[in-house]
Amino acid sequence: MKKQIVLLPGDGIGREIMESAKEVLQVIAEEFDHTFIFHEHAIGGAAIDAYGEPLPEETLKASEHADAILLGAVGGPKWDDQPVHNRPEQGLLKIRKSLGLFANLRPIKIIPALTHASPLKEDIVSGSDILIIRELTGGLYFGKPSERRNNGNSVVDTLSYERYEMERIIEKAFETAMTRQKHLTSVDKANVLESSRMWREIVDMKSNEYPEVTVEHVLVDAAAMKLITNPAHFDTIVTENLFGDILSDEASVIPGSLGLLPSASVREDGVGLYEPIHGSAPDIAGKGIANPLGMILSAAFMLRNSFGLDAEANEIERAVNEALEQGYHTADLQVKDGTLVSTKEMTELVVENL
Amino acid sequence: MKKQIVLLPGDGIGREIMESAKEVLQVIAEEFDHTFIFHEHAIGGAAIDAYGEPLPEETLKASEHADAILLGAVGGPKWDDQPVHNRPEQGLLKIRKSLGLFANLRPIKIIPALTHASPLKEDIVSGSDILIIRELTGGLYFGKPSERRNNGNSVVDTLSYERYEMERIIEKAFETAMTRQKHLTSVDKANVLESSRMWREIVDMKSNEYPEVTVEHVLVDAAAMKLITNPAHFDTIVTENLFGDILSDEASVIPGSLGLLPSASVREDGVGLYEPIHGSAPDIAGKGIANPLGMILSAAFMLRNSFGLDAEANEIERAVNEALEQGYHTADLQVKDGTLVSTKEMTELVVENL
Ligand SMILES: CC(C)[C@H](C(=O)O)[C@@H](O)C(=O)O
Ligand SMILES: CC(C)[C@H](C(=O)O)[C@@H](O)C(=O)O
Repeated sequence: MKKQIVLLPGDGIGREIMESAKEVLQVIAEEFDHTFIFHEHAIGGAAIDAYGEPLPEETLKASEHADAILLGAVGGPKWDDQPVHNRPEQGLLKIRKSLGLFANLRPIKIIPALTHASPLKEDIVSGSDILIIRELTGGLYFGKPSERRNNGNSVVDTLSYERYEMERIIEKAFETAMTRQKHLTSVDKANVLESSRMWREIVDMKSNEYPEVTVEHVLVDAAAMKLITNPAHFDTIVTENLFGDILSDEASVIPGSLGLLPSASVREDGVGLYEPIHGSAPDIAGKGIANPLGMILSAAFMLRNSFGLDAEANEIERAVNEALEQGYHTADLQVKDGTLVSTKEMTELVVENL
Repeated sequence: MKKQIVLLPGDGIGREIMESAKEVLQVIAEEFDHTFIFHEHAIGGAAIDAYGEPLPEETLKASEHADAILLGAVGGPKWDDQPVHNRPEQGLLKIRKSLGLFANLRPIKIIPALTHASPLKEDIVSGSDILIIRELTGGLYFGKPSERRNNGNSVVDTLSYERYEMERIIEKAFETAMTRQKHLTSVDKANVLESSRMWREIVDMKSNEYPEVTVEHVLVDAAAMKLITNPAHFDTIVTENLFGDILSDEASVIPGSLGLLPSASVREDGVGLYEPIHGSAPDIAGKGIANPLGMILSAAFMLRNSFGLDAEANEIERAVNEALEQGYHTADLQVKDGTLVSTKEMTELVVENL
C-alpha cells in the first residue's frame, strides 16, 4: 500500500514526538511492505513564525491532497500576544473546517499497567472503555453571528446546525457503536435547547435503522456526573461540538495517562487528522523527555481508521503495551518500581517490540 | 427576626424532605426567637397536576413577596409526555428568570466523615472546598432566536449576554472570593467564543478593584479536567450559565455525597431560592428513606445568605455534621459500620443535636 501522509509537528514537544511516530511508521512500512511518503509542513505557532499565519496556504493545500494527516500539538505562551484570530489554535480550527473533518473520535481506555495512575478509585475505573464521538465543524464554534452589539454593551454567539450535519455525525455514531458494544449514549440539553431537541429527534429516527444498538439520551450535566461516578457504564457516546469538547476532555483524565491518548478527526471518505490529545507542553520542549506514546498511538489509529490496516495498528498497540507492561515510562507517568526513559528510549523500546 | 418563607416541595421526595427542613427551621426559630411564616405552594409536576402548568400564577405571586424560597425538587417520568414547554423543570427556569435570581451558588466541600465515599482517591479530594458561582438567567438558556429554520432543515440557539449581566455576576464572584480564600478562577472558552472574550475583559477590568484576589482564566475544557485531577486547586469559580450547569454538576459528585449538597439562586437584594442539588428521586418517593440533609443544609444556607443569620446556620451545620460523625446515614450514603436511618430518624437526630 502506498500512502501520502502529511506531518504537522506544530509547536513545543510536537517536533520530538513526531520524529517518534515517523520512525515507528517506517519500521511498519518495511515490515508490512508499504510505502509511506511523508510531507512535513508548518502549523500553529511555528507557522505564525515562518509565514505570519497559523495555517499557511501551502500547509492547507498539502493537507487537501494527503491520504491522512498527523499532527503533533499547537500553541504556547510565545504567541499569547497575537490577536485572537491569529493564534496557533486557529490553525487547528481552520484545518478541521476546511477539510470537513466533522467527526472527532476520542477513545478512552484504561490501560491495565497504569490503572493505579487514575485519579479515580480502581474499582470505579477498571474496565472502562469509552469512545466519545464529537461533532467538530458546527455548533457554537462556527455559528454566525458571533459579535459585539450596541456599542459593546451586548454580545452574541450562535449555536447553529444544519440537519445534515447532525445526521451524518449521528449516523457515524451508530455505525461505530455497531463495531463496539452496541450501546450508544447521546448527550444533549433537550430540556433547554431547541438544537438539542432536533438532535434527539434525529437520534430516535436513526435508531430505527439500528435495532441492535441500545440508545439512551443523557443530559449533558448528568453525563458530566456519570463519567466520574460510573465510567464503565459508557460504550459509545455521541454529542455536539461544545459538549463534546468539555466531556471528552473530562473523560480523558479518567485513565490517569493523558500522554497516551490518541484522537482522530475524520470525514466520510476516511481521510483524517490524527493527534495526541495532550498539549504542546512548552515547559519541557526540547528536553527529550516528552511522552511519544500518544503520538505513536495516533499513528496506529491512522493506520486502522484511514487505511484499514488493522494488523499493523494492532502491532503498534501491542508493542506499546509491552513496553508499558515491562515497567518503562516517561516522566509524565508515575510507575512504582518502573524504569524512567527518555522520548528516544521509549521510541526504541516500541520499535524493538515490533 | 420575622421572615416570610415560601415552601415549594415540588415532586417525588420533595415533600418528605421539605417536612424535615421545616421542622429544623421551627426548632431554630424557637431557640433563637425568630418568627418564620411558611407559605406552601405548588411547582413542577405537582403544579401541572393541580393547575395545568409548572409555575402557576399563585406560586409566582407568593414567591415575589417572600423573603426567601425553599424548593424541594421537581420532575419525574409521570410528566414525560407533557409538551416540552410545560414540563416540570420549566417551572424552575421560569421562577429563576421571573425573580431575577441571576447568581447560582454551589458550594462543594468534602465532609471528613464521608471522604471515603468519593469516587476520587482520598489524597486527591481531601481538603477540597469549592464554591462555583454560575450565571443563571442569561446565555444559551434564554437567548433568542431559538428555533427551527428552513422547513426544519436547520436550527439555531443563541448565546447572548448584556454587559450588565456579566458585570453583576463577576462582581458577585469577586465579593464572594473576598470572603473565602481570595482565589478566583474564571472559566470561559475565549479561544472560540466572542461572548467569552467579553467575559474575560470584564473579569480583568473588575480585578483592578480587588487587588487582593488572585485571578486565573481557565478554558472550560481544561477546567473540566482539573476539577478531577486537582479539585483542591480551586477556591471560587465563576462562569456563565451553560458552563456552570455542566461544571457544577461534575464537581458535585466529587465529595461522593450528592444528597448533602445545597444550592442557592440569589439576586442583589439578598432574596434567594434554596434547594438541594439532588433530583426528585421518584423511585424512592413516599418510602420515607430519602436523605433530608441536602434540604436541611439548604435551609441553613438560606439563613446565612438571605437573612444574615450566621449563628443559626452554623448551628444547623454543626448538628448535621455531628449526626454524620456519629455514623448515622440514610440509604444513599455508604458508611462502614454506620447506622442506617430513615428520613424522619435523621431529621430527629439533627433536631436533637441542635
Ligand atoms: C484549541 C481548541 C479550539 C480546541 C477545541 O476546543 O476544539 C481544543 O480544545 C480541542 O478540543 O481540540
Ligand atoms: C432542570 C434544568 C433546566 C436545570 C438547569 O440546567 O439549569 C438543572 O440542570 C439545574 O442545574 O438546576
